[in-house]
Amino acid sequence: MANIQPLPSWNHSAAKSAILDLVARVTKEGGAEFVPPTGRIATFDNDGTLWCEQPLQTQFFFAFDRVKQLSAKDPTMSERQPFKAVLEHDYNTLFGLGKQALFELAFATHTGITDEEFVEIAREWLATAKHPKFGRLFKECTYRPQIELLAYLRENGFKTYIVSAGGADFMRAFVEEAYGIPRERVIGSSAKLRYDLANGQVSLVKLPELNNFGDREVKALSIGLHIGRRPLLAFGNSDGDLAMMRYTRSGPGPRLALLLRHDDAEREFAYDREFRLSPLSEALDKAADYGITVVSMKRDWKVVF
Amino acid sequence: MANIQPLPSWNHSAAKSAILDLVARVTKEGGAEFVPPTGRIATFDNDGTLWCEQPLQTQFFFAFDRVKQLSAKDPTMSERQPFKAVLEHDYNTLFGLGKQALFELAFATHTGITDEEFVEIAREWLATAKHPKFGRLFKECTYRPQIELLAYLRENGFKTYIVSAGGADFMRAFVEEAYGIPRERVIGSSAKLRYDLANGQVSLVKLPELNNFGDREVKALSIGLHIGRRPLLAFGNSDGDLAMMRYTRSGPGPRLALLLRHDDAEREFAYDREFRLSPLSEALDKAADYGITVVSMKRDWKVVF
Repeated sequence: MANIQPLPSWNHSAAKSAILDLVARVTKEGGAEFVPPTGRIATFDNDGTLWCEQPLQTQFFFAFDRVKQLSAKDPTMSERQPFKAVLEHDYNTLFGLGKQALFELAFATHTGITDEEFVEIAREWLATAKHPKFGRLFKECTYRPQIELLAYLRENGFKTYIVSAGGADFMRAFVEEAYGIPRERVIGSSAKLRYDLANGQVSLVKLPELNNFGDREVKALSIGLHIGRRPLLAFGNSDGDLAMMRYTRSGPGPRLALLLRHDDAEREFAYDREFRLSPLSEALDKAADYGITVVSMKRDWKVVF
Repeated sequence: MANIQPLPSWNHSAAKSAILDLVARVTKEGGAEFVPPTGRIATFDNDGTLWCEQPLQTQFFFAFDRVKQLSAKDPTMSERQPFKAVLEHDYNTLFGLGKQALFELAFATHTGITDEEFVEIAREWLATAKHPKFGRLFKECTYRPQIELLAYLRENGFKTYIVSAGGADFMRAFVEEAYGIPRERVIGSSAKLRYDLANGQVSLVKLPELNNFGDREVKALSIGLHIGRRPLLAFGNSDGDLAMMRYTRSGPGPRLALLLRHDDAEREFAYDREFRLSPLSEALDKAADYGITVVSMKRDWKVVF
């Protein structure tokens, strides 16, 4: 049943009006801008767009805990970087080691097992792991206004996708429960897989080799590969989402690109350029030029969680 | 509304019983083998499984016609292989040129334009192009029993996917109309894409470079990447589908792998090993060992088209 009053956690603002307007126009049967349900695609970034990404993206906390777990079995890890820095909670050193070290961290903690085993490990971790500031489960650090928006779009025949630089298999461990988004509508970074046939049984083993890193232009390319259709709505929160937003806005007919700005230190966090893992700079400076609607967490949301 | 008598174009046979049995078991609420709809994934090969692939896969006819079209603008094409062989209808020479020549043919006829332009070109071609033996449109050379099976699975909460070595964008031009399968549930071979930003507008340009060739083991790996869940049912017709079938059968609980055998020269075609573009050999020889159910077109289908 449709909401009588949609998006109750959104304040009445230009952003909310833009969303309601887009949905009204593309769903109006017989209207010149009508888009059949097959074409109603909405894509969302995950970290910082659907759930909290501060002080670090959740997947880092997962990786850190997994290093602890693995190092209990392999004590030599504590002598090697980047694991030494992780085990010593020396994050300045860790993030100073460069991109390659972060990939090593990701491979050591996310590969060498089957995709099914990995999802189970992530699911177990997410069942108890808590956010350091908010004290609640990470998987409960999702934004209520966004959960409402996802549901509202689906009620109006949209297919809601996640298109994130986060690991696809990590997200698959919780997106159904947290967002009502099925696993196959998750597009993210991924490791290469190996077809493993042993004793007549087949499984897919995650390899320590990058298949794709789903950030920036790759977000648009991945939408082309996985969905094969340009979104009507894209929602992001950093420069990493800009390509997806501009790709979305470049289509004919009504299109909406939304950018969440974290300007609410009291209820969540306030940051733009200064978060080096996911900076917001060009997207904010050029929002008006690029036809991007900025959503202020502080101004536009009645509640955050 | 569910069919009172499902799969009317299927004869009562072991294959039909196996399908009905799988669906009954995984959809029985409260049953030990119940699988919630999120987990009900069915994957189908396309060429030779959902529609006719003889005397050649439809995409070859498309490529041949597109060579004619392109060579009208670029007369030098007729002097170069593999285009010369195509224009002279010399298919023995064409298929003797080797795999690289076939990729060149594919790149010349499928890339250098945006994905959206390509789908439009393929759609226009499919609107009028006819099968040389049956005299009807290629897109009407789909198998009626399979259309019924796809619909029956969806009525029972399954998500139906195509996992094919055919070009994903080519299939996206007709799968919604022909099979009721949306574009985003097509997994196939693909060219690399380039993020193209010109005059502030973004589009995705298909490049003459392979992103993936979706045959054999790659079918299973692509299911891992795109769907993130092992199918309950897989349907194929050649050795190229064997990896997907064995991956499916290796999961816990009820799983079904089906292999369509073309043994009906009167109503369609009869071929196994002798079709070099898509041979059936190991899958047929080892079907019993691998737990694969063979479907005989002649014995198990009341009608073909």
